[in-house]
Amino acid sequence: MKSRAAVLTAFNQPLQLQELEVPALKPGQVLVKLLAAGVCGSDVHMQQGEDPRTPLPLILGHEGIGEVAAVAGEIYSAQGALLREGDRILWNRGIACGRCYYCVVLKEPSLCADRKTYGINLSAGEKPCLNGCYSEYIILRPGTDIFTVDAQADPAVLVSASCSGATVAHGFDLAPPQPGDTVVVQGPGPLGVYAVAFTRRLGAARVVVIGGSEERLSVCASFGAVTLNRRQGSAAERRELILELTGGRGADLVVEAAGYPDALREGLDLVRPGGTYLSLGFAQPVGTIPLDPYLQIVKKNIRLQGVWVSDSSHLYRALQLVLSAPDLFQKMVTHRFSLLQANEALETMAARKALKAVIDRF
Amino acid sequence: MKSRAAVLTAFNQPLQLQELEVPALKPGQVLVKLLAAGVCGSDVHMQQGEDPRTPLPLILGHEGIGEVAAVAGEIYSAQGALLREGDRILWNRGIACGRCYYCVVLKEPSLCADRKTYGINLSAGEKPCLNGCYSEYIILRPGTDIFTVDAQADPAVLVSASCSGATVAHGFDLAPPQPGDTVVVQGPGPLGVYAVAFTRRLGAARVVVIGGSEERLSVCASFGAVTLNRRQGSAAERRELILELTGGRGADLVVEAAGYPDALREGLDLVRPGGTYLSLGFAQPVGTIPLDPYLQIVKKNIRLQGVWVSDSSHLYRALQLVLSAPDLFQKMVTHRFSLLQANEALETMAARKALKAVIDRF
Amino acid sequence: MKSRAAVLTAFNQPLQLQELEVPALKPGQVLVKLLAAGVCGSDVHMQQGEDPRTPLPLILGHEGIGEVAAVAGEIYSAQGALLREGDRILWNRGIACGRCYYCVVLKEPSLCADRKTYGINLSAGEKPCLNGCYSEYIILRPGTDIFTVDAQADPAVLVSASCSGATVAHGFDLAPPQPGDTVVVQGPGPLGVYAVAFTRRLGAARVVVIGGSEERLSVCASFGAVTLNRRQGSAAERRELILELTGGRGADLVVEAAGYPDALREGLDLVRPGGTYLSLGFAQPVGTIPLDPYLQIVKKNIRLQGVWVSDSSHLYRALQLVLSAPDLFQKMVTHRFSLLQANEALETMAARKALKAVIDRF
Amino acid sequence: MKSRAAVLTAFNQPLQLQELEVPALKPGQVLVKLLAAGVCGSDVHMQQGEDPRTPLPLILGHEGIGEVAAVAGEIYSAQGALLREGDRILWNRGIACGRCYYCVVLKEPSLCADRKTYGINLSAGEKPCLNGCYSEYIILRPGTDIFTVDAQADPAVLVSASCSGATVAHGFDLAPPQPGDTVVVQGPGPLGVYAVAFTRRLGAARVVVIGGSEERLSVCASFGAVTLNRRQGSAAERRELILELTGGRGADLVVEAAGYPDALREGLDLVRPGGTYLSLGFAQPVGTIPLDPYLQIVKKNIRLQGVWVSDSSHLYRALQLVLSAPDLFQKMVTHRFSLLQANEALETMAARKALKAVIDRF
Repeated sequence: MKSRAAVLTAFNQPLQLQELEVPALKPGQVLVKLLAAGVCGSDVHMQQGEDPRTPLPLILGHEGIGEVAAVAGEIYSAQGALLREGDRILWNRGIACGRCYYCVVLKEPSLCADRKTYGINLSAGEKPCLNGCYSEYIILRPGTDIFTVDAQADPAVLVSASCSGATVAHGFDLAPPQPGDTVVVQGPGPLGVYAVAFTRRLGAARVVVIGGSEERLSVCASFGAVTLNRRQGSAAERRELILELTGGRGADLVVEAAGYPDALREGLDLVRPGGTYLSLGFAQPVGTIPLDPYLQIVKKNIRLQGVWVSDSSHLYRALQLVLSAPDLFQKMVTHRFSLLQANEALETMAARKALKAVIDRF
Repeated sequence: MKSRAAVLTAFNQPLQLQELEVPALKPGQVLVKLLAAGVCGSDVHMQQGEDPRTPLPLILGHEGIGEVAAVAGEIYSAQGALLREGDRILWNRGIACGRCYYCVVLKEPSLCADRKTYGINLSAGEKPCLNGCYSEYIILRPGTDIFTVDAQADPAVLVSASCSGATVAHGFDLAPPQPGDTVVVQGPGPLGVYAVAFTRRLGAARVVVIGGSEERLSVCASFGAVTLNRRQGSAAERRELILELTGGRGADLVVEAAGYPDALREGLDLVRPGGTYLSLGFAQPVGTIPLDPYLQIVKKNIRLQGVWVSDSSHLYRALQLVLSAPDLFQKMVTHRFSLLQANEALETMAARKALKAVIDRF
Repeated sequence: MKSRAAVLTAFNQPLQLQELEVPALKPGQVLVKLLAAGVCGSDVHMQQGEDPRTPLPLILGHEGIGEVAAVAGEIYSAQGALLREGDRILWNRGIACGRCYYCVVLKEPSLCADRKTYGINLSAGEKPCLNGCYSEYIILRPGTDIFTVDAQADPAVLVSASCSGATVAHGFDLAPPQPGDTVVVQGPGPLGVYAVAFTRRLGAARVVVIGGSEERLSVCASFGAVTLNRRQGSAAERRELILELTGGRGADLVVEAAGYPDALREGLDLVRPGGTYLSLGFAQPVGTIPLDPYLQIVKKNIRLQGVWVSDSSHLYRALQLVLSAPDLFQKMVTHRFSLLQANEALETMAARKALKAVIDRF
Repeated sequence: MKSRAAVLTAFNQPLQLQELEVPALKPGQVLVKLLAAGVCGSDVHMQQGEDPRTPLPLILGHEGIGEVAAVAGEIYSAQGALLREGDRILWNRGIACGRCYYCVVLKEPSLCADRKTYGINLSAGEKPCLNGCYSEYIILRPGTDIFTVDAQADPAVLVSASCSGATVAHGFDLAPPQPGDTVVVQGPGPLGVYAVAFTRRLGAARVVVIGGSEERLSVCASFGAVTLNRRQGSAAERRELILELTGGRGADLVVEAAGYPDALREGLDLVRPGGTYLSLGFAQPVGTIPLDPYLQIVKKNIRLQGVWVSDSSHLYRALQLVLSAPDLFQKMVTHRFSLLQANEALETMAARKALKAVIDRF
């Protein structure tokens, strides 16, 4: 049996469509036929050689959802179901070692130094080779956390729960909004949409999104956000508005999902004394910005919390969130491609045309 | 009856020793005969006109401990004791409004916008005038949280619990060290000594202090800290050592108690992934420093927590800490003055000669 | 000026409608014209002399909402607004001392031993006499936390936020449900309805309500709850269902809002290992029940958390909750009365005919 | 190669000393030469057939410390060290599945339904057979969390960290004492001694131990506890004393480490309003006790928290605790035996003669 896959063989070159052998499964492995693979902004960065982790050749794609095609042994989902052929599953893209200080003492497997990630640092040259989601099949290895999902929901809508959704869940796990809070989200991309949705779901009184694209802002608005187009007003005006909404205090929580340095400067000014700034949008280096520790951090008693990737608990929360409002999340998926169009999908992301692009035909 | 007091009447001028009238008490007020007044670094800044809050004329001194001289009405300590003449008491230097969003919804009275502080923003021109601790007597007004203390402990040793001790307690309330943690403290001044003491008391496995004064470092060492003199090694060497102590991870918690910008740069590098950087040493503006949000904060999943002042719960924790090891804290009080020597006390602090200076004769 | 009030002058006797003098306001007092007063189950118990706290004569009514009629001085709401005549306000029924160990060290004013409560332990014989909500006017004293509310919402719908709503908010503050959790609520009365609403608002995946009244269960269902009529199935069947819904684990959180001892027995069996049982429905003595500490608590690693009354932070959360869905909460108010009908209102509650009864004409 | 082991082959019969074959190691296994094996109260219960989990034949002993004799592959300790022959190690007695809802979503591996425990539910009939610590050698299987320990400390002193120490750490992880708190510990056995030590280490102001054996109480006293002999005073007198120590409030935290039902009754009465009762001493059924939910739980707003077993994070904390004061913990080890004396060791425990018995010659 063969599996077609889109393989990154050289940086700054198009992915190559290859036919790879599907090997016999070893104990504990699960063969999955993909139903949808998310196209993440970091896929573009990996193609362009900007991510030092990228081992070549690499089947891109760390967000996946699929159907169990074969199981070698008795494997259970995290919910406790014995996996069978035909089960629809989502999985944690990262595999932690399970035995180190981060995994067992701190219980933060996302910080594990030996964390392997499908589609990111597991090369197609490393057995069993089918290690990414831009592919007809992927082979999940022992140590992968697997979640069975409702077969009725659109796979293309669920798939982002495993990356941007889980990262936002991680952030809100570290700094949960309280009922009645005012939350500001900077950046209406996939992270921003998840931040809006979580904020609403977790009982915040209101959420304000700042962004530059009317189209993306309107998706956020459909989740109940107040939207502010940063092309139509100044940072000072936005600050004025947030102060007005909050009795002069400022936002209880500001979520940076933008990835550009100026957001940090504006965002810290929007946090109320004692509040939190959750920074989860910087996925690659952006250089330095000037920080005034006294005025921006200490005197305001503020928490600046960085958020990096996620673990299975976060994935589960994100999945629950999407399943609670699939119709809303449907609006996030603006572009769909076949596996043959993988390069086109990456170009669409690189050109920032798509809010969320998904490969859903293989 | 009169009270002598050292009054700041003009910036950059010596305090003037004045005799002020002790007025008749109004209901809810407590007249206190001071036993010790701490001389805080910020007193120097106020004298020099660097603190915009300073109203003239001002009796300096926000750290005080004293004996009840008279009470107008039935007043109870926070521990539930009816105050009587002769009781030894410590009090929260700040008085929050008790009714605002910060006070009642967030339960963070230290963030109250109307917080008044003895010796800082309560002028000697505002009745009942005796509003600071560089004075024979102070009058505590309704809304002040009062703690009765054991009459045997040396007042000069206890007094710093109400400012630097409480601030550190606030920080550790926000980010408590876990048993077995490795903690780094930057700066061996009063804040640093309290950070070391709290860290040891709260069960951290080890605490490393970085500082430039052998004398101060030796006080920290007596509390059980490993000390690193930053004049005798590079930041890179110190980092190497911390990594070695922590299996290559870095410190679980780094406490900035130094107040200079470079500390932030070095300190963030010492925090392990997922760890916390507690910044509580910036008491006045220091300008900006370059921050790399991706490398220093987000990719390491770090929490940078600013800490500003404190509330009564923190004061109580700090007081308990000092009372658990008065002999150790005794070493922190390196200079003692009489009220008549108030200007000399300030000069000693300004010249950084004292670890902690206290006025304990009135 | 006079205020009509329904006064409890003797236990087990009807309330007497009296005309009381409205005294001149003292500094810090607020005269409020009531718009709605909730009729709470504990009002019935007080009338019947079952609550040892009840001082006679007493104007019943601890849940109130009204319009500012006069203010003596500058008084601010917790949101920071200067109170003016005509403002619509809600307030914390309890007034804590603000200075004791519970108030300032533990920051739990609801545990304050000197807590005074309008309509419960502030007698009509104690000045300024207008100390309860079954009255045209109430006088709020200094130390009362006041919240301004939107003038458009129906006062009768908002008023329960100040008692049952705040109590549930207190419980969920102690043990918040996580996104994706399964929550069981025992008892579909006002506490139960709030528990359902909070659970949904805070992102639980599902909430199951157990109750005996189809009418009340249908109100819960309109908030999105699955309902189980305990007259139509056994405890064993209900347990089976909960296990099925949760992959065999049991509910993450069970909320006791029933007030009868058997609920505790059934409910502990429904909690998953490591889960929480929140008991907030026992408002008066019910005798003892047998508890097996090994099997029911320790081996399951369960938390059994009692919840008693609430503070202003809880009231604010509850108010935010009601304001987020006033149309749903409207369904909770099944009976409305005038002040003249106060005795009829109590009888309706005593006969368990009303889900929530409110006096909204004065 | 052979390993001598004390094997339980029939309930209520003496253990049999057998010579078992040491099999060739499979990948991921670690052969450990035991240095010390703790004799736990539950070993006695297993021998007497009172624990339904016990599979026969069984090598008893779930608390162990030893020296690495051989490693099959590259195995790392949780601190990150590659294991080599001669390394001294401690390990988590329980092996969780690592993939289920408890393990990956809740991150509570101690609640894993498939948790296997050396010396408890891993029979000597199940390969690799050397599955308990009453033996010269034990074979640790993949999935075991391993900690390297300092070779200088006495193994017999460290070994209890892996069971009673870790269980107490689990409890204090769920409900940590605050600096300044008053803690009461019921029962001066190994759990109680650990509770005292943790309480002191975590900064409580004072800890009071209630027990019936002067010998055990004196060990607690050496850790800094106030001791109360329950044979020399009534529960009412002890309550009076606790109230006196705490300004009339009661203990902030009461730890039940006694295992008899009456302790629960007395202990709940000692908790202050809003405080916590941590029950970790019930290791087997004790029947029911009457509980008044209104008076004992709800009206006092109390948390009753059951604690069952532990995970590797708890073991690590307990190990750090013992290593911080090995001389004190030395006093806990009152009886030492050779492997040949295993039955004698069990009898000593059954007769309650030993505070802690350890097998430390093999």
